Amino acid sequence: MMLTDPSKKYRPAYQRVDLPDRTWPNNTISKAPIWMSTDLRDGNQALFEPMNAEQKLRMFKALVAIGFKEIEVAFPSASQTDFDFVRGLIENNLIPDDVTIEVLTQARDHLIERTMESVRGAKKVIVHVYNATSPVFRQTVFNLDQAETKALAIHAAKKIKEIAARHPETQWTFQYSPETFTATELPFAKEVCDAITEVWEASSTNKVILNLPATVEVASPNVYADQIEWMHRNLARREGVILSLHPHNDRGCAVAAAELGVMAGADRVEGCLFGHGERTGNVDLVTLALNLYSQGISPNLDFSDINDVIRTVEECTRLPVHPRHPYAGDLVFTAFSGSHQDAIKKGFSMRQEGEFWEMPYLPLDPKDLGRNYDAVIRVNSQSGKGGIAYLLESNYGVVLPRRLQIELSQVVQVLTDESGSEVRAQDIWQLFNQQYVQVQQPYQYVSYKPEHIDENTEKVTLVVEQDGITQHWVGQGNGPISAVLNAFNHASLPQIEVVSYEERALGQGASAKAIAVIELVDKARNVSTFGVGIHDNITTASVQAIVACVNRLKAVEQNRQVA
Amino acid sequence: MMLTDPSKKYRPAYQRVDLPDRTWPNNTISKAPIWMSTDLRDGNQALFEPMNAEQKLRMFKALVAIGFKEIEVAFPSASQTDFDFVRGLIENNLIPDDVTIEVLTQARDHLIERTMESVRGAKKVIVHVYNATSPVFRQTVFNLDQAETKALAIHAAKKIKEIAARHPETQWTFQYSPETFTATELPFAKEVCDAITEVWEASSTNKVILNLPATVEVASPNVYADQIEWMHRNLARREGVILSLHPHNDRGCAVAAAELGVMAGADRVEGCLFGHGERTGNVDLVTLALNLYSQGISPNLDFSDINDVIRTVEECTRLPVHPRHPYAGDLVFTAFSGSHQDAIKKGFSMRQEGEFWEMPYLPLDPKDLGRNYDAVIRVNSQSGKGGIAYLLESNYGVVLPRRLQIELSQVVQVLTDESGSEVRAQDIWQLFNQQYVQVQQPYQYVSYKPEHIDENTEKVTLVVEQDGITQHWVGQGNGPISAVLNAFNHASLPQIEVVSYEERALGQGASAKAIAVIELVDKARNVSTFGVGIHDNITTASVQAIVACVNRLKAVEQNRQVA
Repeated sequence: MMLTDPSKKYRPAYQRVDLPDRTWPNNTISKAPIWMSTDLRDGNQALFEPMNAEQKLRMFKALVAIGFKEIEVAFPSASQTDFDFVRGLIENNLIPDDVTIEVLTQARDHLIERTMESVRGAKKVIVHVYNATSPVFRQTVFNLDQAETKALAIHAAKKIKEIAARHPETQWTFQYSPETFTATELPFAKEVCDAITEVWEASSTNKVILNLPATVEVASPNVYADQIEWMHRNLARREGVILSLHPHNDRGCAVAAAELGVMAGADRVEGCLFGHGERTGNVDLVTLALNLYSQGISPNLDFSDINDVIRTVEECTRLPVHPRHPYAGDLVFTAFSGSHQDAIKKGFSMRQEGEFWEMPYLPLDPKDLGRNYDAVIRVNSQSGKGGIAYLLESNYGVVLPRRLQIELSQVVQVLTDESGSEVRAQDIWQLFNQQYVQVQQPYQYVSYKPEHIDENTEKVTLVVEQDGITQHWVGQGNGPISAVLNAFNHASLPQIEVVSYEERALGQGASAKAIAVIELVDKARNVSTFGVGIHDNITTASVQAIVACVNRLKAVEQNRQVA
Repeated sequence: MMLTDPSKKYRPAYQRVDLPDRTWPNNTISKAPIWMSTDLRDGNQALFEPMNAEQKLRMFKALVAIGFKEIEVAFPSASQTDFDFVRGLIENNLIPDDVTIEVLTQARDHLIERTMESVRGAKKVIVHVYNATSPVFRQTVFNLDQAETKALAIHAAKKIKEIAARHPETQWTFQYSPETFTATELPFAKEVCDAITEVWEASSTNKVILNLPATVEVASPNVYADQIEWMHRNLARREGVILSLHPHNDRGCAVAAAELGVMAGADRVEGCLFGHGERTGNVDLVTLALNLYSQGISPNLDFSDINDVIRTVEECTRLPVHPRHPYAGDLVFTAFSGSHQDAIKKGFSMRQEGEFWEMPYLPLDPKDLGRNYDAVIRVNSQSGKGGIAYLLESNYGVVLPRRLQIELSQVVQVLTDESGSEVRAQDIWQLFNQQYVQVQQPYQYVSYKPEHIDENTEKVTLVVEQDGITQHWVGQGNGPISAVLNAFNHASLPQIEVVSYEERALGQGASAKAIAVIELVDKARNVSTFGVGIHDNITTASVQAIVACVNRLKAVEQNRQVA
């Protein structure tokens, strides 16, 4: 146990505003705010390994496809990579006309110059300048008083305005952030913001963005909402201001802070997909957007294929989306408890097309995100460790990826519904084999013949039987998997790609078989599934897994065509 | 893009209470609420693999050590495992005198009887009964009207009271939850709650718990706070009621909902460590507690060794704590950006012992949780194998078998002990490569040439260099692994066998490399170790893994001979 009580060491790091006539608790959000994605800036700078150029471009395209119209693409003065990325976007004409890129700079002359240089020739740019305004930062980090802090901001604002005036070919928007706003004395934050909007001549026809960051989340979200409402009511030139929020998640309340902040008068929210960003992350824009959705408000963002968004973000950030992440986690559309499953089943059976969505335990229709509801059953609820995955692992040494576990549980559910009795490990194993291993329609695996051209080139002749006719398909790649996929691509499915691949030994010793689990996506139809191969030979197991998986992808197609 | 706008399908699933004179936005939390951990019930029932008896006991002991005085230990009527677990706690005297166990039951006679039977002989018990009260559940799931729903609850309350009266050796507390409270008409929720407290004769000397769950989070947290304040102000026998919250996290606002709910008058919060529980989880009690902490309020819970709590929860739930999880995630006390690092450095250098904690970017002193601040992600000699595995996985996408993690951690430990400084992810990666991948003595891999005799017979010519001399070894087997092992066996090591083998993609897509991890045992000398190969071609990766592993086995031999 604790020897001392360390809570004595802390005190609230904000000054509460007295706002008894606050109005935000009576408000509801009736339309989506302006979204600004900072995945490529705040998100990127908080990664173990910042994204490389290719990943940044992939992320940028994904953000555009989702529907973001404002994207902070870089901190150009901080690194050559960031600078070059911005140049690349502009010079290669990669920015759609309706998308405005944003760049961040500190309030220092040479950094501002470099930043403005990075966006030369762009059609529409938001230049975002910040300096720290809170007492701790003024005193501890910069050794500046209030007047000096304000003067620094004003100087930077003038500098930006001056350079921008020399480049009228660009449509400029100016943005200022008093960093650590939530820990700043409110009257001082207002004083600096008002000075800036005066320099920039903010008006209803010349809007300026004032962004009020919870750089570190230091209070419950109602305090942030009070601060925002106070600024909303007291800022000069309010009609010329786009009031913006930038919540971080140190207290786990960033989504709430953004929602209450919008109720309090904000127009715009900055954040990242799935809440990436420094430390605990920026506010999660996916959750915010889909929260609107379930209230009947269009977020103006497209998450109709959320799995694809997840893949992109996981691959670019190399960080996982948590299984319990709202709307996106692997477990959030699952029901484990029998009573929950029963209620949902009744809900589905009573639901009429065209009715409002009112489903027990499911606040949002998973189909609207391209996902499914999963009733995950426990095979042997008496044992307490009777899960399907457990049974397969302990009886057969098979370890399955989580998404495959969930898929498989659906299949087992059908079996238990049909048989009405308890399912044994061997039943599951048999079912697993039928469904994932011995899948022989339309292509029955016959053999394959690899030819080792050199270490980086493998040629494969794949022999399959289709409707009684033997087919010989040849493919080439950097290894057997890509060679076999290419063989298939020639034949029938033009856009299959590997989502995940695992292979491991089943048991030990020379006689051990290998089990290969492959997940393929058919990009054209946007369906993915798993296939499994088991063989003495690791390569054969992989090839068989691909054939099984392709067959399963085909089956998805046929079912869709029937329906 | 979306063809239709599915947001039209939704409408708010709650009825907003009109409460213009709400007081909660003016309140601040001044002391910790009563905590109730439902990790062993709501948390457990939402796991892919429910905890076994041993894990449940481990979790129970951890909860007691943290300082929970109320612990929901089971849903005893739902499974024999749960029933037996409760009996075990009681019969083996495992419940400290200051801890009250809680058991949940549906409002049905035989389930209540079974539940009461499970706790026979316990010193202090909370019996928690619930039924669903919202319109959707009444109509869709149960086909009951309001009067019938209320009668059901009253009947159950009487039944519990009756059985409890026959067992005065136990100190009973009764708890009722109107399930799906947030979607229930408030006057009806109050009507049922008032009826229950009347049956149970709630008074200041006979307190009853009324628990108001956000079974599914359907609104922003201010709406929940309004609902709670309305109940707080309107409930009968309020002086005899412990008002309890049970937020879920479907909209990512559970922590905020709990905080605002406490401001609105609640006395008690139910939740789980790190937010486990159905779907998106219950409210996270760790974040809630530590949020209090950083406001100078003691949570009365001990998280001074949070890494130990994380380990326990991860091992019992088999689910990870996310790297950005407030206070607990691996990334939350790190700073990647130079300006952040600089500010924190200044903050530390200016801080005097005994002063209030006011550190740029760090709302809480990581030392108070037994953690460290990391200027870049670092593994120091304290962090053990979990950290190393995590860094390799998150930075390089490498997932290692547990035994290899342990082996590697010893190697890293030696390095940190020698250098005295901290080790970065890239140092570990380099070390991993040196020790497991680029192992070229005595055999330096040159190439291999497979020949596919038939599906079950593979012939391999392995070319290696030994002491400057090129060797061509030929082996045959049922696949490349056994063929290469046989090639080696002819040459030098007569009894190598495979202990384990795993191969998986590093990344996705056609360009992904494969990583093969093989564990070989030299039977004659009874030594085993791992080797790793990384290559575009899955077969080449496996062959290189074998060569590396054989070299490592040789090294073990030499070391032994020296010793």
